[in-house]
Amino acid sequence: MRAITVAPGVADSLRLDEAWPEPHPEEGAILVEALAVGICGTDHEIIAGEFGEAPPDTDRLVIGHESLGRVLEDPTGSLHPGDLVAGIVRRPDPVPCANCAVDEWDMCRNGQYTEHGIKALSGFARERWRIPPKFAIGLDPDLAHVGMLLEPASVVAKAWDHIDRISRRAEWQPQTALVAGAGPIGLLAALLASQRGLTVHVLDRAPTGPKPALVAALGATYHTGTVNELDFEPDIALECTGAPSVVLEVMCKAAPVGIVCLTGVSSGGRIINFDAGALNRTLVLENHVVFGSVNANRRHWKLAAEALGRADPSWLGSLVTRRIPVEAYAEAYRPGPDDIKVVLEFAR
Amino acid sequence: MRAITVAPGVADSLRLDEAWPEPHPEEGAILVEALAVGICGTDHEIIAGEFGEAPPDTDRLVIGHESLGRVLEDPTGSLHPGDLVAGIVRRPDPVPCANCAVDEWDMCRNGQYTEHGIKALSGFARERWRIPPKFAIGLDPDLAHVGMLLEPASVVAKAWDHIDRISRRAEWQPQTALVAGAGPIGLLAALLASQRGLTVHVLDRAPTGPKPALVAALGATYHTGTVNELDFEPDIALECTGAPSVVLEVMCKAAPVGIVCLTGVSSGGRIINFDAGALNRTLVLENHVVFGSVNANRRHWKLAAEALGRADPSWLGSLVTRRIPVEAYAEAYRPGPDDIKVVLEFAR
Repeated sequence: MRAITVAPGVADSLRLDEAWPEPHPEEGAILVEALAVGICGTDHEIIAGEFGEAPPDTDRLVIGHESLGRVLEDPTGSLHPGDLVAGIVRRPDPVPCANCAVDEWDMCRNGQYTEHGIKALSGFARERWRIPPKFAIGLDPDLAHVGMLLEPASVVAKAWDHIDRISRRAEWQPQTALVAGAGPIGLLAALLASQRGLTVHVLDRAPTGPKPALVAALGATYHTGTVNELDFEPDIALECTGAPSVVLEVMCKAAPVGIVCLTGVSSGGRIINFDAGALNRTLVLENHVVFGSVNANRRHWKLAAEALGRADPSWLGSLVTRRIPVEAYAEAYRPGPDDIKVVLEFAR
Repeated sequence: MRAITVAPGVADSLRLDEAWPEPHPEEGAILVEALAVGICGTDHEIIAGEFGEAPPDTDRLVIGHESLGRVLEDPTGSLHPGDLVAGIVRRPDPVPCANCAVDEWDMCRNGQYTEHGIKALSGFARERWRIPPKFAIGLDPDLAHVGMLLEPASVVAKAWDHIDRISRRAEWQPQTALVAGAGPIGLLAALLASQRGLTVHVLDRAPTGPKPALVAALGATYHTGTVNELDFEPDIALECTGAPSVVLEVMCKAAPVGIVCLTGVSSGGRIINFDAGALNRTLVLENHVVFGSVNANRRHWKLAAEALGRADPSWLGSLVTRRIPVEAYAEAYRPGPDDIKVVLEFAR
């Protein structure tokens, strides 16, 4: 069968393998026919040879961690043939930490996990894949064209879940949310903010393209310019750019008692001159919380599936700005100017 | 009666007023004879003219917010003559915000509060003061020599309360705590950490003086040097120096899923060169929480009173490195080389 693979650590080793082996039954009881995979920055890092790890005893990794497929067989009966399904990315193996042992593998403390398409576990960019029921999330049939957004939505659902839980440290009803960055994560964060009834603001660099209308369709306000130029202080801010200067500005911009969630992964090595005393003073005197959030556990994947199920399918569809058939895979992995989410399609 | 006052905004205006008016009955039903006030960095900022605000229609402010007194009369019956008492510093007046309205004035969102000895409300460095029952905290009679530590202990009790509440975002049992700075706040933070059964480490600049033994007496480990040189990653870190370079190092030093509480108030204006991308990447990929904590509400003051009641009174007494009678007040406000907490005594 066909699979998109890389040699981790080797730049530009991406290729389409025509005779990749069928998934081994030990990979999981549920056999799935791939419909599509979404492509994100982590894929680009892996293709550049900066990230990624092949499974043991092999030198190539099947890429793809944002999955959507259709169940072919599930002898366990947890899903049924024809059901839409996505696979949870992280697996708490081979050495579960205390958090992994209670199914909070997103909060892993020892780094001893594997991840489909990223770390020592075959990804989903192959015609068929298998998954154990515990790591399979069934999706509403209406999401056949956008279900590959479930993985980024799970990251956002975790961010909001932790915002909600951290909020409980005090009596407090947040009203205003700022999302910095209108990529897939930022737009899905804004979607979940609007589903919570918050007044939502989204900040991005792009003055044109599809983003302003997508934000407006949520009833949210679109801003360009800098964080410091905004004329309000948000109760909650979600940082989805990873740009160091934006991160620092967002940390200081929150209203008193505000919560800032960082989701964007920066590359290190960029030294910035900054008034760290003023940052600390603001955090202390205004009781700010800043927290980082990565990955998601099964509970968050279920929350994400519910959130996508409540969203307008055509709005979700507009996040997918290019759909490329697997034969033209190289095109899918080449960034385009107005890309939000690019999707590689296996079957339809 | 005697009172220690300043003209806020005027440097070095501190003086002993011999004929300060008795407290007005409107200040509160409970009449208290002052025993002592503790002195902290905020007092020094006020004396330097950098901070502080006199009550309306006056130009002098009675200083002192770390109080200890003995009840003279309490017609409400909530306390009894002879009881030890401390006064809560912050009052949610004149314009309570939503948080103040539910008695979480430590999480004030509009800045419209007053504070004894700091902001528009007479302090406790006077022979007699009054306080409403809601803002009076009774203390165990064993704390007659150290009860003025209740105010800094309340700040620490809030920090730990929020650490506990934020911890509930995930399944997680923290085991190791790092406290940066062995001043009164840092040492009380270490006390509460040891009361929680954590393995406690304290980092300070001082290689000699009373601090190493005070830390050892808690069963904790004392370190000098930098945060980066420590050979472990703490689950919880309390930053109690306010030094910008220490703040940044502590933010990155926590273990995965760790929580960093900032309590030290920096002065702004010190530009530091640092790798903000690496800081953000660490916060995100390790699911760190960093939060600032200031002030305390009644619940925290009660928690602090319980914590002091469980502590060794002689250990608490060792935190008070100088006790100066009110006549020699100027000496009390002059920093000494091995000071931890300096106390001004009114009556004994």
